Amino acid sequence: MPLCFVFVPFQIFLRGKYKLFPIEMAASTSISFYTSNGAIGVPKVSKSHKIFMSRYPELFSKKPVNCARVCSSADFTALRSSFAVKPLQLEGNREARQKFGVLCQAVGLKNGHANSFSVGQKFQLDDVIEAQQFDRDTLSAIFDVAREMEKVEKNSPGSQILKGYLMATLFYEPSTRTRLSFESAMKRLGGEVLTTENAREFSSAAKGETLEDSIRTVEGYSDIIVMRHFESGAARRAAATAEIPIINAGDGPGQHPTQALLDVYTIEREIGKLDGITVALVGDLANGRTVRSLAYLLAKYKDVKIYFVAPDVVKMKDDIKDYLNSRNVQWEESANLMEVASKCDVVYQTRIQKERFGERIDLYEEARGKYIVDRNVLSVMQNHAVVMHPLPRLDEITVDVDGDPRAAYFRQAKNGLYIRMALLKLLLLGW
Amino acid sequence: MPLCFVFVPFQIFLRGKYKLFPIEMAASTSISFYTSNGAIGVPKVSKSHKIFMSRYPELFSKKPVNCARVCSSADFTALRSSFAVKPLQLEGNREARQKFGVLCQAVGLKNGHANSFSVGQKFQLDDVIEAQQFDRDTLSAIFDVAREMEKVEKNSPGSQILKGYLMATLFYEPSTRTRLSFESAMKRLGGEVLTTENAREFSSAAKGETLEDSIRTVEGYSDIIVMRHFESGAARRAAATAEIPIINAGDGPGQHPTQALLDVYTIEREIGKLDGITVALVGDLANGRTVRSLAYLLAKYKDVKIYFVAPDVVKMKDDIKDYLNSRNVQWEESANLMEVASKCDVVYQTRIQKERFGERIDLYEEARGKYIVDRNVLSVMQNHAVVMHPLPRLDEITVDVDGDPRAAYFRQAKNGLYIRMALLKLLLLGW
Amino acid sequence: MPLCFVFVPFQIFLRGKYKLFPIEMAASTSISFYTSNGAIGVPKVSKSHKIFMSRYPELFSKKPVNCARVCSSADFTALRSSFAVKPLQLEGNREARQKFGVLCQAVGLKNGHANSFSVGQKFQLDDVIEAQQFDRDTLSAIFDVAREMEKVEKNSPGSQILKGYLMATLFYEPSTRTRLSFESAMKRLGGEVLTTENAREFSSAAKGETLEDSIRTVEGYSDIIVMRHFESGAARRAAATAEIPIINAGDGPGQHPTQALLDVYTIEREIGKLDGITVALVGDLANGRTVRSLAYLLAKYKDVKIYFVAPDVVKMKDDIKDYLNSRNVQWEESANLMEVASKCDVVYQTRIQKERFGERIDLYEEARGKYIVDRNVLSVMQNHAVVMHPLPRLDEITVDVDGDPRAAYFRQAKNGLYIRMALLKLLLLGW
Repeated sequence: MPLCFVFVPFQIFLRGKYKLFPIEMAASTSISFYTSNGAIGVPKVSKSHKIFMSRYPELFSKKPVNCARVCSSADFTALRSSFAVKPLQLEGNREARQKFGVLCQAVGLKNGHANSFSVGQKFQLDDVIEAQQFDRDTLSAIFDVAREMEKVEKNSPGSQILKGYLMATLFYEPSTRTRLSFESAMKRLGGEVLTTENAREFSSAAKGETLEDSIRTVEGYSDIIVMRHFESGAARRAAATAEIPIINAGDGPGQHPTQALLDVYTIEREIGKLDGITVALVGDLANGRTVRSLAYLLAKYKDVKIYFVAPDVVKMKDDIKDYLNSRNVQWEESANLMEVASKCDVVYQTRIQKERFGERIDLYEEARGKYIVDRNVLSVMQNHAVVMHPLPRLDEITVDVDGDPRAAYFRQAKNGLYIRMALLKLLLLGW
Repeated sequence: MPLCFVFVPFQIFLRGKYKLFPIEMAASTSISFYTSNGAIGVPKVSKSHKIFMSRYPELFSKKPVNCARVCSSADFTALRSSFAVKPLQLEGNREARQKFGVLCQAVGLKNGHANSFSVGQKFQLDDVIEAQQFDRDTLSAIFDVAREMEKVEKNSPGSQILKGYLMATLFYEPSTRTRLSFESAMKRLGGEVLTTENAREFSSAAKGETLEDSIRTVEGYSDIIVMRHFESGAARRAAATAEIPIINAGDGPGQHPTQALLDVYTIEREIGKLDGITVALVGDLANGRTVRSLAYLLAKYKDVKIYFVAPDVVKMKDDIKDYLNSRNVQWEESANLMEVASKCDVVYQTRIQKERFGERIDLYEEARGKYIVDRNVLSVMQNHAVVMHPLPRLDEITVDVDGDPRAAYFRQAKNGLYIRMALLKLLLLGW
Repeated sequence: MPLCFVFVPFQIFLRGKYKLFPIEMAASTSISFYTSNGAIGVPKVSKSHKIFMSRYPELFSKKPVNCARVCSSADFTALRSSFAVKPLQLEGNREARQKFGVLCQAVGLKNGHANSFSVGQKFQLDDVIEAQQFDRDTLSAIFDVAREMEKVEKNSPGSQILKGYLMATLFYEPSTRTRLSFESAMKRLGGEVLTTENAREFSSAAKGETLEDSIRTVEGYSDIIVMRHFESGAARRAAATAEIPIINAGDGPGQHPTQALLDVYTIEREIGKLDGITVALVGDLANGRTVRSLAYLLAKYKDVKIYFVAPDVVKMKDDIKDYLNSRNVQWEESANLMEVASKCDVVYQTRIQKERFGERIDLYEEARGKYIVDRNVLSVMQNHAVVMHPLPRLDEITVDVDGDPRAAYFRQAKNGLYIRMALLKLLLLGW
């Protein structure tokens, strides 16, 4: 790993609320920098020229800040790769750091990293907490990286880009499917995994540790945390605490953003576009966070038409309908799956969740049998259209559909791998 | 990893029901091939010369088909290493693939792989489902590879042959001993592991996913699945579904083929031969699938004599006795462990399984104390003979036997590692 | 990895009870060696010059014995790196090995290993069982290695020193925090991990395998075992059985030596010294094995003063007080946390363990609220002093303390990583 250290004036692009604001930094004698709120400062520079103190913690994202040297002298052409400023000590909270300063170091990034997957100095991705955090451009950029990930082969250079990185899967409730997908993604990129499926033990009744304390402990052992929790909002609390990136792998009835991303990615990959598509959301639209997140994300694209096909007891709720109206997205409710299927690019089927019906098994049985995707439905679908499902399925898609090329649900599950590989790459190495 | 791509006519050896039938393939302009049922075809070849379409899915085993280039021109001598044809997309079932074709790519294999462990183009091992699938020659070939595995040392070249491969241990019931043995085997060869011991969650009562759907999901995340299940026949169902290799690590009262293999391997390694040996099977012969599988495999060898020494309530069942008769294997029942031990090459002791006796603890206690291997038994055994046990043991072998060199049971457990290393190598890289 | 094999006379330094006694060994023709009890022998040497038989198992520690070649010939200067004698077969117990001999091999060690982390041929560390096994010099040496570990960076040479080694985490009761710390340590050094948190299944009521048998099985799969057990003394029994190193990660009410080591390491790292310090142990001093082990270790240093600040129901017990008296360590009990805090270098707070109070919740609530470290306590503490806690905490340290630079408890948890990295390095590679 060739490292190139910075001895010349350069620029840092700030992150977060400060946006990408250039900062002049003369590391050889002093470092002067400007923030978007007008502050200016000259941190002390050690005589090694590469270690310095800063009291501006907002400079330092959770990962090394990608920098671009602006010195145009021919002498330094060889150094024109990307490099980073790394805080050496991040103990204490932000106030403590502003008071006492943060010891920093300018470090080079591996050339290989910078070249192999760089898609430009777009923006900073710190955590993945909820589907709403992604705008259309970000989604498009993530999908670009996911497509690169599909090409990562065993023992190809790309398969080792996360070598030396450790991911902790901190699952407060088990979800084998999601956990295996993340762990496979990390290992496909050469990274290592610390697994825990009984994270609840951290905060057992007897011991009562807060989530924040658990996160502070685990972040000492790992470089990124993939967290599943039973409480809505837990991922956001973890991200606020952690100095390392957090990925929400589902927090109770809240968010499951990587599922939403892989759904949209699958539609683009199968249909070839996201603008102008027609999508049927079928099944349990009241309780499924999957279809709710998907509706939200589809609203970011142009000329999308959504059909809701659901038994009466699990109809799509008004908040989503109102949101779609506010975004001028066309939607329609229908009880005729055959007619809808014939018009759609995507039939997105979901499982009726028995556990939501309590003792009203009769209502469950009625809802469950109402809209089944079988070969009859397939026979009216267009040739280019696809059937999707977040899995697991029961019998809401019959097994004889599996052999049809339009059955996309296992490809969809596989796409989860590529989306998670892309997110791990983006959070740990940047764009 | 130097890759050599194929631009010249070459041969593919078909697999499975088509046996090793040579196929002429001129990848530079067209690929013509013949199957054993007389079909002939010319798949489309892309202009890149290395990506082509095929509607002959039977060409493609679960792993790259080992090929041998037949071009004798001196110009291509340097390319004479093995290479493979890899399907690029395996979505959909076989019918879908025959209808729409499979996009294929000719890829080179690492030179190192081809040389270091190749023992000839013997045959294809796709899955490990049951002891009966192995004939005498296959067993002998697997044992050859296992002996090579005993030499694989830390940081030796052989210790990285599975680098980049991912094994999923999909355990529907916990079996720490078996799981650790497989995971150690995979890691000793440089591979990585995805662990799940609560795979039952995949098919929880509430969710009800089929085994087939779970397998289709997990195979998207891994290169090989080691499966333990509570239902007999589950491994066979998984293998029928999966495009990647399946190893049965025990399916309920059914099979545990890797245990049977390591038992026979241990006998050969300890005694030096398998033909002409005398073996005593002691303990619970009615319920132990281990001794039943072992009797079955021993019947493949010549002049084997088997003694059954079991309490009356757990005697060997007639199906095995009938099978041994049909193969002309000599067997005898005896109640005199001392006399039998003095004649045998192998005394294979097993645990009386308390859980099989239900409320009849009296019968259990009577059966349990009946045939104990202790120093008295050792004293009549021949010098070259060994005591084996599938472990765990209670007190059916006394602890003071452990120090005797003829106590082979911990070496036997260690041999499980080598057998599993061999199977992983064979299933992922071929012979 | 350049290997240099030994074809010339060399010396082996014996271990354990034989201390570092030099042994002449002429591997080219014969190997003569002397033990400290006067025995002398000439093991057979195979014609390969590097494989030989020995009936002196005491020669062979659990890991390769570090040797130093004494041949002074200039011809062999290039070979002057360290090498090792490795037993090839360790089956059977010690008596069996003395009777039948052990097949051995002289093997070279990686140059990189010998250079990068070697801190001299100090002594042999075979197992980590209890805090008492470490004297002052050993502690200091371990801390030297731990400080080196703080510098091990991703993809730095040091980050791969345990490549090819397998650690088994054999946890008979779950302890996510401890397990993750060990697994992170192993992976940060390039090693691999076999995880089991349900090791109790090995010895389930139905199966009843002894701990010793379980250890013999697991040591066949791994190079080192990190064990947590519910019974005091279990780690010692495991170490007596195992041929590979055992680390005690807590055995019931017994020992948790790596916690004690990281506590002392943290004090040295934060305060800069161990002699002459003043430490307050606060909270549950009756039940916490952490503070008891810490008091024991602090007694090894000079001019240490210890304050005990505990609610009456969980006061420090007499055995520790007597021990401190016997070592002339000054101690004092106090009920005034503010006064003590103003004098101390370290305030070591602990959690009142609710589970110890049974149904007397009233006593628990009274004890729990008595000594809280909050900003008031901080305000009287000296600038250089620190607050420590073994974690998890409830509210015995208020959250508003976290931001103060003197809050050392999350740094303390992180130090556990470095201590465990150091121990793994020492046990697997030696000094």
